[in-house]
Amino acid sequence: MKILSFESSAVSASVCLTDDEKIIAESYQNCGLTHSRTLLPMAESLLAGCDHTLDDVDAFAIAAGPGSFTGLRIGVATVKGLAFATNKPCIGVSTLEAMAQTVYGENICCVMDARAGQVYQAFFKRDGETLTRLCEDRAIKLDELAEEIGETSQILVGDGANLCYTKLIPICPNLCLAPEHLRYPSAYGVAKLALTALNNGKGVCANDLDAFYLRPPYIAQPKKTKIIV
Amino acid sequence: MKILSFESSAVSASVCLTDDEKIIAESYQNCGLTHSRTLLPMAESLLAGCDHTLDDVDAFAIAAGPGSFTGLRIGVATVKGLAFATNKPCIGVSTLEAMAQTVYGENICCVMDARAGQVYQAFFKRDGETLTRLCEDRAIKLDELAEEIGETSQILVGDGANLCYTKLIPICPNLCLAPEHLRYPSAYGVAKLALTALNNGKGVCANDLDAFYLRPPYIAQPKKTKIIV
Repeated sequence: MKILSFESSAVSASVCLTDDEKIIAESYQNCGLTHSRTLLPMAESLLAGCDHTLDDVDAFAIAAGPGSFTGLRIGVATVKGLAFATNKPCIGVSTLEAMAQTVYGENICCVMDARAGQVYQAFFKRDGETLTRLCEDRAIKLDELAEEIGETSQILVGDGANLCYTKLIPICPNLCLAPEHLRYPSAYGVAKLALTALNNGKGVCANDLDAFYLRPPYIAQPKKTKIIV
Repeated sequence: MKILSFESSAVSASVCLTDDEKIIAESYQNCGLTHSRTLLPMAESLLAGCDHTLDDVDAFAIAAGPGSFTGLRIGVATVKGLAFATNKPCIGVSTLEAMAQTVYGENICCVMDARAGQVYQAFFKRDGETLTRLCEDRAIKLDELAEEIGETSQILVGDGANLCYTKLIPICPNLCLAPEHLRYPSAYGVAKLALTALNNGKGVCANDLDAFYLRPPYIAQPKKTKIIV
């Protein structure tokens, strides 16, 4: 099954074309440009570069949350549009579970910067190729996460990994950062989860795809401006 | 230092733009198309996609061998051209050492299909972030490699990994394949090696860059055709 997968839940963006477990092509960017400008051109040049068109794709997948509100909306809207236009199935998977797919090590702590002193987070345990989820995706304060981690060894992955490492290392001495090329979410992680879900008949039509948020958007109160008459 | 790195030593091709250790953008393809058609367009859309031009690049890097004769020539020619046109330094690194950079596990066996019953191969040992080379890059027969591996645990990486696994698993029971997303050489592995080498002043000008082959090309004798007069 050929799946075109997207990841745009944080600062980095990636697109991946897979045929079952095989990666046909993948593109990744972490340059701070907005996903609304980069995501579709990445998909377009990726498909063209390997002589594929949307006709060759069987399904579309997206990391649907948690994550940046704008990033998720851009990714989900892109996949909804592609699935609607081609009348093909699509699927949304957990951003945190997708990023755990590509990292090796026993204890994996997936973290995304949720601002306001919080991270979106989940723990996973790896035994060879078997990955077990240890808690639900959640928004958690950094000091509460520090208490849970304590002195356990954890590999930090996600766009919140650097933040967590810097803030928590004085109290959680056995943290380590996933290596640079595995630290940020990738569309291949999305594809791995999507393949299993689609094979289990969990694909949906464009109308039924939605982002999943863990909390309402954090919008700062605009500063009052003094009007000079 | 911003490096534009290329990997085209086997069937897959990839291009990566790094800023020191950080990956700004990476593109990867494993679709069987010839690198002469895919490599430069990949670099072009990668740079354009992250608002960079060749002016922003400080140096160019290539996996210069061992590997497919045609693949190496295309990659080296591309980097020579870019370095010559921009008057910037470039560097060639070992294909096998580059692919060991991105794989985790203690014993790493890098293998490329060299045809004629041989593989290009080198052993590496990883201790955290430290990678130690255990032998020089070499061309070796599969049955000789099997004898050296014996019952040791080895993670196979490279385009010869599947071949080695299939042929050697009956005699080398502790072999395992690197996971799909880390099994094939990547331009980021090239960039990691290139950064250290360039920082140590080992960059060269376009004229001095060359592919390194381990043996002369294997060219099959053309079949004699009967000429009918």
